[in-house]
Amino acid sequence: MVTADGTPWHYLDTAATAQKPRAVIDAMARALGDNYATVHRGVYTRSAEMTLAYEAARRTVAHFIGGHEDELVFTRGATEAINLVAQTWGRATLKPGDRILLSQAEHHSNIVPWQMVAAEVGAQIDVCPLTHDHRIDLDAAEAMLTEAHKLVALGHVSNVTGALLDAPRAAAIAHKVGAKLLLDGCQSAPHMGVDVEALACDFYVFSAHKLYGPTGIGALWAKAELLAGMPPYQGGGAMIDRVTFAQTTYASGPQRFEAGTPAITEAIAFAAAADYVRNLGPHNIHAHEQGLVARLRRELGAMNDVTLFGPDDSAGIVSFAIDDIHPHDLGTILDESNVAIRAGHHCAQPLMDYLGVPATARASFGLYSSEADVDALLAGIARTRKIFGRG
Amino acid sequence: MVTADGTPWHYLDTAATAQKPRAVIDAMARALGDNYATVHRGVYTRSAEMTLAYEAARRTVAHFIGGHEDELVFTRGATEAINLVAQTWGRATLKPGDRILLSQAEHHSNIVPWQMVAAEVGAQIDVCPLTHDHRIDLDAAEAMLTEAHKLVALGHVSNVTGALLDAPRAAAIAHKVGAKLLLDGCQSAPHMGVDVEALACDFYVFSAHKLYGPTGIGALWAKAELLAGMPPYQGGGAMIDRVTFAQTTYASGPQRFEAGTPAITEAIAFAAAADYVRNLGPHNIHAHEQGLVARLRRELGAMNDVTLFGPDDSAGIVSFAIDDIHPHDLGTILDESNVAIRAGHHCAQPLMDYLGVPATARASFGLYSSEADVDALLAGIARTRKIFGRG
Repeated sequence: MVTADGTPWHYLDTAATAQKPRAVIDAMARALGDNYATVHRGVYTRSAEMTLAYEAARRTVAHFIGGHEDELVFTRGATEAINLVAQTWGRATLKPGDRILLSQAEHHSNIVPWQMVAAEVGAQIDVCPLTHDHRIDLDAAEAMLTEAHKLVALGHVSNVTGALLDAPRAAAIAHKVGAKLLLDGCQSAPHMGVDVEALACDFYVFSAHKLYGPTGIGALWAKAELLAGMPPYQGGGAMIDRVTFAQTTYASGPQRFEAGTPAITEAIAFAAAADYVRNLGPHNIHAHEQGLVARLRRELGAMNDVTLFGPDDSAGIVSFAIDDIHPHDLGTILDESNVAIRAGHHCAQPLMDYLGVPATARASFGLYSSEADVDALLAGIARTRKIFGRG
Repeated sequence: MVTADGTPWHYLDTAATAQKPRAVIDAMARALGDNYATVHRGVYTRSAEMTLAYEAARRTVAHFIGGHEDELVFTRGATEAINLVAQTWGRATLKPGDRILLSQAEHHSNIVPWQMVAAEVGAQIDVCPLTHDHRIDLDAAEAMLTEAHKLVALGHVSNVTGALLDAPRAAAIAHKVGAKLLLDGCQSAPHMGVDVEALACDFYVFSAHKLYGPTGIGALWAKAELLAGMPPYQGGGAMIDRVTFAQTTYASGPQRFEAGTPAITEAIAFAAAADYVRNLGPHNIHAHEQGLVARLRRELGAMNDVTLFGPDDSAGIVSFAIDDIHPHDLGTILDESNVAIRAGHHCAQPLMDYLGVPATARASFGLYSSEADVDALLAGIARTRKIFGRG
């Protein structure tokens, strides 16, 4: 990748947010410009066309993960999607004494919403431990699950280690006790082909901006019968059937959860991103990224002072630590060579506690990542060692 | 205005959503392209620069309405902003027997969130009537308000009639009984200079897309001491201080209410829109639109079969009905002449009930509206009459 002024830039922070292809930027600009109008309400042609484009975007995004458009709610992002489930399904379903199973590896966005709703309804949270290579330990999960568990909420791919969950097995053990399975798909949707039916989950959330799409939008996929039973979320226009001060009735389907003017142009650009990825082929992207991961893990694994986190088949993400060099120092020095990695707790402080580190260095790949990016990272690590007097 | 293929287009639905200036589309494309990175977390330069740009956008948008950046929360839109207040301040403050004063003219987004929280906490909603020219009747409001009222939530400008609220007086009578004043500023921010200090409100919400900015973002302004006392909203990254499974603590300031990766590029384009309007001068825009409103009301008022709603000094919006011609039919026929108006309940069904109509036709102006747009509307009305055999 090169920057606007032609400088090479080694962007290794795609797990935080992906750079956008021209097709996505153009789709956004067109939707904001020549085609712009509101949706669902206008009696004039351009608004009717925009409504078709918005609903086509819903269909495209739903199909991208193997779902149907009547199961796909556009949200502000994946974080809001989880909060939406917690605040609607969770508040309506969970009773005092009910339990929620999370894992030690969850992103804060898949912890805090459950803590908030659990405190409100008197439910309890259990934490599934990890295996020695930092996968979610589904043997342990199976042993922990009881009929008091109403929900299992897990990251499909860890944003720190790239560890991939065996989702069908997680679904099977959750369903065996009558619990629903929510998958945080932020790190799986961009890195592999996703089919919610094959995964057998009940809820799947992901964000557009990590999938080469715009900020400000994400999606909740939920089984239609679950959506149908969920109480409304936010109140406002578009989500109602009829409003009076005496009684308000609500729309059915995804619209019930989309109060107000939606993120119209973001939905269209989200669909453009999904199309872009689909055309390249998620499996091709996965194979490309797995090659980069394998090489980077091999080279880092050969260094005596490096600790690697996560399993060898991690999906597009390599988290590591170098003895006595703080990840922030590494990140700062790498930046001088135009290598952008993430250093920190990655919004997963409980996982950091578990790993016994305050932070990790994380390199993450996208469809545009290359061997040259790995070369630059390795060269930057060598340079950092020299700066620390360990040349 | 002309469309991409050069056809004249008379866009009179700016109250639904505004068309975007090139400056806004370019700001969005730049932020998604050459400058794109995540905020608040990266150790590399481009992320640090994006964080500065995002926080500068917050400052720009806050200053645009006379507020400070530590009082400005970015939300998905104005609807979410009202829901945020209802779900945080409302749920924490309102007790059984407390009362909320709304008006008969409110948009659904300023009704349904209060109905939802009132049902939850056991509070009651009172409805302020309108004056003969469809303004919110503040004499009636003053007589209705008691110490049981904790909130007065009113549209600053009606999205149906354009009627402007005397906000300082509304604030005075609300504060006299110890209630807070929330203003729905969706239709005032784009049409006039707004200064939250002069308005003396406690909460002010508005959306970007009605202010010539992008979809997917809006803002809540709240007095800093109110924000400080509000419990968190959605859980996730960025809004936390420290997460453990035993106890999570939360960030302070606006970030506490912005869980997850924010609408980064939308915030930057929102600020570009605010700058664009500020440079033109909100007072100039107001004067320009008032001229168009005055002419249109004068011409429609001279027609025997037309009913005009709202006061003569309505802000940028003219709602009307033609005897025995349904607004939808009018809208559809006008569309054939490339005139885009809104026909419907405008997400204000209680106001329709009050006015005794199922729908109105609404023409609304923006900074790009012209006399030619009014000419085209009037010609289209004449043509519609002919089609209905009333030529």
